[in-house]
Amino acid sequence: MSKVKVGVVGYGVIGQRLADGVARQEDMELVGVCDVAPTLAVRALKEKGMPYKLFLASEDRRKDIEALNIPVSGTLLDMANEADILLDSSPGGIGAKNKELYVKLGKKAIFQGGEKNSVADVFFHGYANFDEGINKDYLKLTSCNTTGLIRSVDCLDKKYGIEKVAITIIRRVADPGDYHRGLTNALQIDKAPSHQALDLMTIMPHIDATGILIHTPITHGHIITVVAKGKQKITKEMALEAFSKHDRIRIVSIDEGFLGNASLFRYARDLGNPRGDMYEIALWQDSIVESGDEIMYAINIPQEAVTIPETIDGIRAAMGMQPQKEAIALTNKYLGLGKWK
Amino acid sequence: MSKVKVGVVGYGVIGQRLADGVARQEDMELVGVCDVAPTLAVRALKEKGMPYKLFLASEDRRKDIEALNIPVSGTLLDMANEADILLDSSPGGIGAKNKELYVKLGKKAIFQGGEKNSVADVFFHGYANFDEGINKDYLKLTSCNTTGLIRSVDCLDKKYGIEKVAITIIRRVADPGDYHRGLTNALQIDKAPSHQALDLMTIMPHIDATGILIHTPITHGHIITVVAKGKQKITKEMALEAFSKHDRIRIVSIDEGFLGNASLFRYARDLGNPRGDMYEIALWQDSIVESGDEIMYAINIPQEAVTIPETIDGIRAAMGMQPQKEAIALTNKYLGLGKWK
Amino acid sequence: MSKVKVGVVGYGVIGQRLADGVARQEDMELVGVCDVAPTLAVRALKEKGMPYKLFLASEDRRKDIEALNIPVSGTLLDMANEADILLDSSPGGIGAKNKELYVKLGKKAIFQGGEKNSVADVFFHGYANFDEGINKDYLKLTSCNTTGLIRSVDCLDKKYGIEKVAITIIRRVADPGDYHRGLTNALQIDKAPSHQALDLMTIMPHIDATGILIHTPITHGHIITVVAKGKQKITKEMALEAFSKHDRIRIVSIDEGFLGNASLFRYARDLGNPRGDMYEIALWQDSIVESGDEIMYAINIPQEAVTIPETIDGIRAAMGMQPQKEAIALTNKYLGLGKWK
Amino acid sequence: MSKVKVGVVGYGVIGQRLADGVARQEDMELVGVCDVAPTLAVRALKEKGMPYKLFLASEDRRKDIEALNIPVSGTLLDMANEADILLDSSPGGIGAKNKELYVKLGKKAIFQGGEKNSVADVFFHGYANFDEGINKDYLKLTSCNTTGLIRSVDCLDKKYGIEKVAITIIRRVADPGDYHRGLTNALQIDKAPSHQALDLMTIMPHIDATGILIHTPITHGHIITVVAKGKQKITKEMALEAFSKHDRIRIVSIDEGFLGNASLFRYARDLGNPRGDMYEIALWQDSIVESGDEIMYAINIPQEAVTIPETIDGIRAAMGMQPQKEAIALTNKYLGLGKWK
Repeated sequence: MSKVKVGVVGYGVIGQRLADGVARQEDMELVGVCDVAPTLAVRALKEKGMPYKLFLASEDRRKDIEALNIPVSGTLLDMANEADILLDSSPGGIGAKNKELYVKLGKKAIFQGGEKNSVADVFFHGYANFDEGINKDYLKLTSCNTTGLIRSVDCLDKKYGIEKVAITIIRRVADPGDYHRGLTNALQIDKAPSHQALDLMTIMPHIDATGILIHTPITHGHIITVVAKGKQKITKEMALEAFSKHDRIRIVSIDEGFLGNASLFRYARDLGNPRGDMYEIALWQDSIVESGDEIMYAINIPQEAVTIPETIDGIRAAMGMQPQKEAIALTNKYLGLGKWK
Repeated sequence: MSKVKVGVVGYGVIGQRLADGVARQEDMELVGVCDVAPTLAVRALKEKGMPYKLFLASEDRRKDIEALNIPVSGTLLDMANEADILLDSSPGGIGAKNKELYVKLGKKAIFQGGEKNSVADVFFHGYANFDEGINKDYLKLTSCNTTGLIRSVDCLDKKYGIEKVAITIIRRVADPGDYHRGLTNALQIDKAPSHQALDLMTIMPHIDATGILIHTPITHGHIITVVAKGKQKITKEMALEAFSKHDRIRIVSIDEGFLGNASLFRYARDLGNPRGDMYEIALWQDSIVESGDEIMYAINIPQEAVTIPETIDGIRAAMGMQPQKEAIALTNKYLGLGKWK
Repeated sequence: MSKVKVGVVGYGVIGQRLADGVARQEDMELVGVCDVAPTLAVRALKEKGMPYKLFLASEDRRKDIEALNIPVSGTLLDMANEADILLDSSPGGIGAKNKELYVKLGKKAIFQGGEKNSVADVFFHGYANFDEGINKDYLKLTSCNTTGLIRSVDCLDKKYGIEKVAITIIRRVADPGDYHRGLTNALQIDKAPSHQALDLMTIMPHIDATGILIHTPITHGHIITVVAKGKQKITKEMALEAFSKHDRIRIVSIDEGFLGNASLFRYARDLGNPRGDMYEIALWQDSIVESGDEIMYAINIPQEAVTIPETIDGIRAAMGMQPQKEAIALTNKYLGLGKWK
Repeated sequence: MSKVKVGVVGYGVIGQRLADGVARQEDMELVGVCDVAPTLAVRALKEKGMPYKLFLASEDRRKDIEALNIPVSGTLLDMANEADILLDSSPGGIGAKNKELYVKLGKKAIFQGGEKNSVADVFFHGYANFDEGINKDYLKLTSCNTTGLIRSVDCLDKKYGIEKVAITIIRRVADPGDYHRGLTNALQIDKAPSHQALDLMTIMPHIDATGILIHTPITHGHIITVVAKGKQKITKEMALEAFSKHDRIRIVSIDEGFLGNASLFRYARDLGNPRGDMYEIALWQDSIVESGDEIMYAINIPQEAVTIPETIDGIRAAMGMQPQKEAIALTNKYLGLGKWK
């Protein structure tokens, strides 16, 4: 079978990681990446010797890019023509505009969380609703928090049945290196319920979800606490048993030295992972407590890379490459997920 | 009736505010404050013209203090002799040692949250268990988070009955000006359940409580999210009705401009409150959501000053000055609590 | 002599403090303050019982303000008519627009650092160029960093003569309570030379100045290091002697407990200063070092309040109230400056 | 010629990077790394499949390590016996204790900046005093800030001659993932002069140096501003010409997108560098200004990895492998330094 050809539109924090993830899939081929300006990411691509072809989505800065001797392989149109499916990680709103081109060319696309749901046929999560994405033209991925949250809730739901969740999202406010946004010595609260709770209900409509989101002035890793009500009483042992079998959930503990989100960020760097990234969420086993008939736990969401596996699942669904179980297993295998166990 | 004489032992972040709070009670007299060294707090006292008498708990640094022309009114023994009751806000562990002196002199005392529960006869909260403190010799106040949390839970409990709470504490890690502790670009998680949940159960044993605590690198104001289960279904309107009658809970909203804990810190400064403090917790009305048969909400805890009112309630209980309702009303009146309504 | 009537336009971080400062001047009368919306500052004014009259600069939000029962005493035109001089601390750019009104009414005005220099006849600093402001119609105050920096440089210059300075500004990026700007876990560098160095040269043209500015993710107190070259060799002792006589420079040391900018913020709160503010800059005596034939030292700039004294000096200059020495002495007396010595 | 055998003692932030750096030197062989406990770094080593042999410096935690199936290749004694030279990056003070073993075994060693100077025969910097380290038994490397600072000062000194420097160090207070130290919303000042200025004078005694150090609550990258006086007037162009030829100094600009230290941290991650590290310091060309007869500029110090190249230079010196120029060129070649040009 020939490889599925994938183009990445928008070579920012997410786009770079989508490209890296696709490049590791042996049954996919990365056509290239597309951006508009000589950003630091594009400069790094050049310094690394152009492992990926660069396409231009706009002519505005072509001269600036060529002045730096950065080779340009064509336009967005060229890349889209060559690709079977586009992963659009442009800034919010641009994806919807790009979609016009994809429709015109008859190309499939997967959008990231910054776009409105209406941009896509399906709001997608690889574990929770894979089948709804099969052979669909346009998928939108859940956002980083929602992707990680659903991993954990779906894991309990599949095994024990979940009726209700109440979440508290302790959100990192910027990525490492962001200068266009930030918060200094302050917590900021959003109006409740948080969109992540609403998004969970869109993906998993049989669950009643609500939540509160608090922004915190840090850069690596959201932490979410989840209070979940099972159809049956879920004990700490039952929860751990379910979580520990999931290839995208890493069970950690304070006693091991994982004191918080920064420990996980350091650990991923020390593992030698590209860009110091981690695809899996972490779940502290020392955080799991029983709250009457409910279970409560805390997870860490590595916001820069967490959506990559589910996006690649989305390629497999949209292109009809494999059924869910096989698809997820392949994504995990090529990304090295679960091999720490 | 003659005024109750109060001495404050330990003139740090809490001690300074205890002294200020006592000084505002028209039926109490502040004998003085006691410390061991020419700290910044003691230097500020001097620069203000010694509104409170300073006593020395140790001779070690007397020369340093006298070299600064800071008048010393005597020793801890002198102050304790003169007082009817001591508010001990020494660093954790010192209070237990000081207690030996209080016992010897037959003086009552109230300890702050840093001491072990065993230091006192009663673990005390002005609203939740006032009667247990009446005429007792030794009380220990709940910590800042627990004090504020119980205000809100007790408020719902008294009106509707509460069976269970699951809390997420988003903790500020240091006070403004602290250099002996800090956290930089990291969230840190404690082993669950958090002590605040356990403490709540000690004070309110009919409630099942658990929770997770996350430290955040900020300095003013913990935020706690509470998922509470009532004996009956509590709607958002019912919760708001109860909260809005409480004189130590300030209802705020994002639309008014209270975007997070830093807005409250700024607001208290702009009110001209001494030291820019706020005694009341804030409760965001836009945070209140119904979670199935439970209610969820977020509160802000101004950690430097929040325990002052309940400590003064404690004086009223321990000294048998008034019954609960009258005691709380007097504390609130003298501190100006509730007058914003 | 009748009191000079002063109106404050823009009741934000600076405007509130200008109003407080003017209200303390016994030879001035605060006509009122002017703003456009029910901001937190305006809500705090209401909660305090309207110690200052509120005027409205726009009708857009009048209904919202009146709905909160906040009494409005008139429009900006009304306030300006009543005033002899306006202190304009509107957001950058608005002051220039307001100036049209002031010109039309023949009223004097002092603008804050956010406006362009061209808005005013004189770029003003109370110590460094008071005489240039005498009887002028429009002054612009130096920004917070420049105001504090010039205090220290002028102090050395007046006594020993200064030829050259090279500064490093370690800038706090947001005020406590700011949510519209922030920086998270990052230092940010501006293109050199920093505007503060250029501004210093505008005010003190006989000095050659340059500098680099680095933004840091904190909220209270810039720190500036200064490398200054005297006309003669300035020793540490000579520098200290000059600094210690200045009523707007507070000499502090690490050994006293002033470990950094947060210590000063805490100390000002513990002094009971309104809003926890400090007008004076702090100068660490343990930071003063001799660098060959140059002197190097570090100062702390309390950004929220540092420009208030020099702005009030500006009123005295523009209104021709007193000559420099007397003017500064009166400002200091009414603000309580220098009394810590 | 047979490869020089190197052992790394202390597998923490620096030790891990020393091991990585040595492993890349084709004329060296990494015997292994040594630590005492199943730290996160050791767990990551295990998860990566033990690319380096692990030795144990203490038996205390052997059981804990073996319980995790982490293979142990022997003791510190075993590793030291096998090595020609030890790189000791143990916590401060432990290195001095370890030295007793090295002396006993007749092994050379290089200590990191945390040890006292007296631990070594020479206080070493690869560029500034290589020859003093030749064939010496015990070297101590300059600390991260001093190493990067000297790179830039030595670069100007070699070309133009430098007489005097005054530095301001804006120090990151903790590494990413550190929980044992931190600072929250505060700048902290050290007593001047900073040790880095004194250390520079130890290495380059012909230069008069002083400086002030300010700690800031961030985790990646110190920034230092340098005011340097040349024997002749050094213009911006002259400075840039010298800096741009240095293989361990990366010239960057704000216009390229390098807005601060966080941009460099992100860029190193996006380059795919192991652990997201950068060996070179960055120098902002937009920061260079002429200050009278002096030159002023700002550099970024990537504190986790910056000392690795100079430490490897130290191996080459102590082992008498090559003369300075050739040694530095080899270190740079194997680490890929300078190839971005």
